[in-house]
Amino acid sequence: MEIYLDNSATTAVHPEVVQLMNKIMLEDYGNPSSKHKKGVDAEMHINEAKEILASIMKCDKKEILFTSGGTESDNMALIGTALANKRRGNHIITTMIEHPAILETTVFLEKNGFRITYLPVDSTGCVKLDELRAALCPETILVSIMYANNEVSIAEPVAEAAAIVKEYNPEIVFHTDAVQAFGKYRIIPKKENIDLMSVSAHKLHGPKGVGFLYIKDKTRINPIIFGGGQQKAMRSGTENVPGIAGMALAAKLCYEDFDEKINRLYELKEYFVSRVLDIEGTVYNGKRGREGTPHVISISFEDVRSEVLLHALEDKGIYVSSGSACSSNKPALSGTLKAIGVKNKFLDSTIRFSLCTDNTKEELDTVIATLKELLPVLRRYTRH
Amino acid sequence: MEIYLDNSATTAVHPEVVQLMNKIMLEDYGNPSSKHKKGVDAEMHINEAKEILASIMKCDKKEILFTSGGTESDNMALIGTALANKRRGNHIITTMIEHPAILETTVFLEKNGFRITYLPVDSTGCVKLDELRAALCPETILVSIMYANNEVSIAEPVAEAAAIVKEYNPEIVFHTDAVQAFGKYRIIPKKENIDLMSVSAHKLHGPKGVGFLYIKDKTRINPIIFGGGQQKAMRSGTENVPGIAGMALAAKLCYEDFDEKINRLYELKEYFVSRVLDIEGTVYNGKRGREGTPHVISISFEDVRSEVLLHALEDKGIYVSSGSACSSNKPALSGTLKAIGVKNKFLDSTIRFSLCTDNTKEELDTVIATLKELLPVLRRYTRH
Repeated sequence: MEIYLDNSATTAVHPEVVQLMNKIMLEDYGNPSSKHKKGVDAEMHINEAKEILASIMKCDKKEILFTSGGTESDNMALIGTALANKRRGNHIITTMIEHPAILETTVFLEKNGFRITYLPVDSTGCVKLDELRAALCPETILVSIMYANNEVSIAEPVAEAAAIVKEYNPEIVFHTDAVQAFGKYRIIPKKENIDLMSVSAHKLHGPKGVGFLYIKDKTRINPIIFGGGQQKAMRSGTENVPGIAGMALAAKLCYEDFDEKINRLYELKEYFVSRVLDIEGTVYNGKRGREGTPHVISISFEDVRSEVLLHALEDKGIYVSSGSACSSNKPALSGTLKAIGVKNKFLDSTIRFSLCTDNTKEELDTVIATLKELLPVLRRYTRH
Repeated sequence: MEIYLDNSATTAVHPEVVQLMNKIMLEDYGNPSSKHKKGVDAEMHINEAKEILASIMKCDKKEILFTSGGTESDNMALIGTALANKRRGNHIITTMIEHPAILETTVFLEKNGFRITYLPVDSTGCVKLDELRAALCPETILVSIMYANNEVSIAEPVAEAAAIVKEYNPEIVFHTDAVQAFGKYRIIPKKENIDLMSVSAHKLHGPKGVGFLYIKDKTRINPIIFGGGQQKAMRSGTENVPGIAGMALAAKLCYEDFDEKINRLYELKEYFVSRVLDIEGTVYNGKRGREGTPHVISISFEDVRSEVLLHALEDKGIYVSSGSACSSNKPALSGTLKAIGVKNKFLDSTIRFSLCTDNTKEELDTVIATLKELLPVLRRYTRH
């Protein structure tokens, strides 16, 4: 038995996506830059992918830039905007709970003459908009606020934040890291004043190694990777055709029967959360219900080290995460959990369960029963 | 009928590679950073890939850095070395016939305070080592010379060049873009004094969107993409596990029965070249025989525009390239052909045929017959 509840780390690729990628790798393998039929066939797949994504975001096809994934999208958003706007100012605003793809990139920019403001969040992880208002200044060139957090269940007030930014100065570029949100929310960037948006395919049952950056037409941004001039010289390198086509198909499948799927996810989540919280010594982090994201569940378990619980669950075929997988190579404790004020004793006792639409109530029942069985045993060890 | 002679642009993915990637995408889809079994399984694939590649290059596993492809590898080699060594000097040496992934990156570095020397080449495309000797100076921090050219059949004297560089100053980093060479040559970087080497998977029947940079232990180089700290923080972003495993398997297959395959490629190439040169008004560019690469064939056809010939061949199911596909989105004429002194009238009349081991003598016979049939007709139009 395998119960995979680590879908915020990565997801299984949808079989239809694998099938499409197979066809492209074996038959339509041409280089989209080639002028013959094989190149044209490959380019057609890219065009179709753009059409699918543009229709989901109600944007123009030319506003989609393919990248190697969420991390590159975030790097391009920040470094590319900084390079293109440095004459206008050197101030960048972000939040304390961003993914490392943002926070490590701002560290790099700080070393290169940029000044960064890290906005605090409240105890649910929600960014403080008053602090955003206070931080804006004439040197501000970029604001980057994630759409949904990867460690706790919170969707940030992106549209409100972007409105505040644009009201202060419409020239300031507004970026959102939507790696955990795309596929879970209907995001129409233009409706929310979003200029740049990062997306990764492998979080939505697409392949690893591919993502995109939505770039609103006329946004001032420079490339960060140079070469053969592909994608109008904004991102050189032979396009990852099977990856791009696979990502678009995965996105399309996500948005089919979307409301139904998301409603079911929220139901599953609430079902699970309320039952886990019945267990003594458990604390939920982030927002409950519709104010939280439909798939992320962060629970602190008193008197159990998260790594011990993680491996005890693993032994039963249940796969979860301690903190976020993306930074789990680092022994450091989660910045997000600290930022939302999780008590010290819980920082190392928190588990992230993350769902996808393939998960079932039966699986969650098994997880709950397993937790009830494991926790008293593990706690006995800790307390002695 | 389809005869694909554009293997320097990209190659069909080997069916075994596709099969392995399928298994990983559907079953071993975990995030290598995850601490549970699914993550461990994914990490195992990465480890196996490293072992395969390290055994091919007789290097250490930790000297392999996975990237999104040849272009990113080249960008990292140049920008990463420039960032890490800027206190030691600002001078970089490369050649006039590098791929745009090098030449456009040096343009970016030039704008950022670096001085670039572009070495000339002789009429076969071979870099002039005397000019390299003359260009070295106390400010030189990096020399980048491609292993094999992508437009004409020439392998550069990389080992000699690197020896000259290291004799002048062992601190200077030596990089080679081996995108067209890996899989065609047995390259042992340490034997040839290579510190950095760029490789792309899709040129050797692996998938698009993945490559690697060989980084000799202790080479001074910085990351150019920041985030979750994957690959010892040298290249953040969830590893493209299926792509990485697919690339390694493709490389392994390339180096099986290697000498036999390469001998056959050289035979095929000479067979084709000698017959095409029998046609009136044809000129071969680059080196013949073993001094050239086994797979690239550049021929100028008097009085025919390359694009016209390309599409005429396409109509017969024969796929070739005019110049290199990687820069074919740009209407500009080839820098390589100009640099080797191809006559003006031939610059726009040159076709690149590029082979792989799947090509057959029968296919080449068909191409030769087709050329003999098409050329008189096309030339009649041009001459009138």
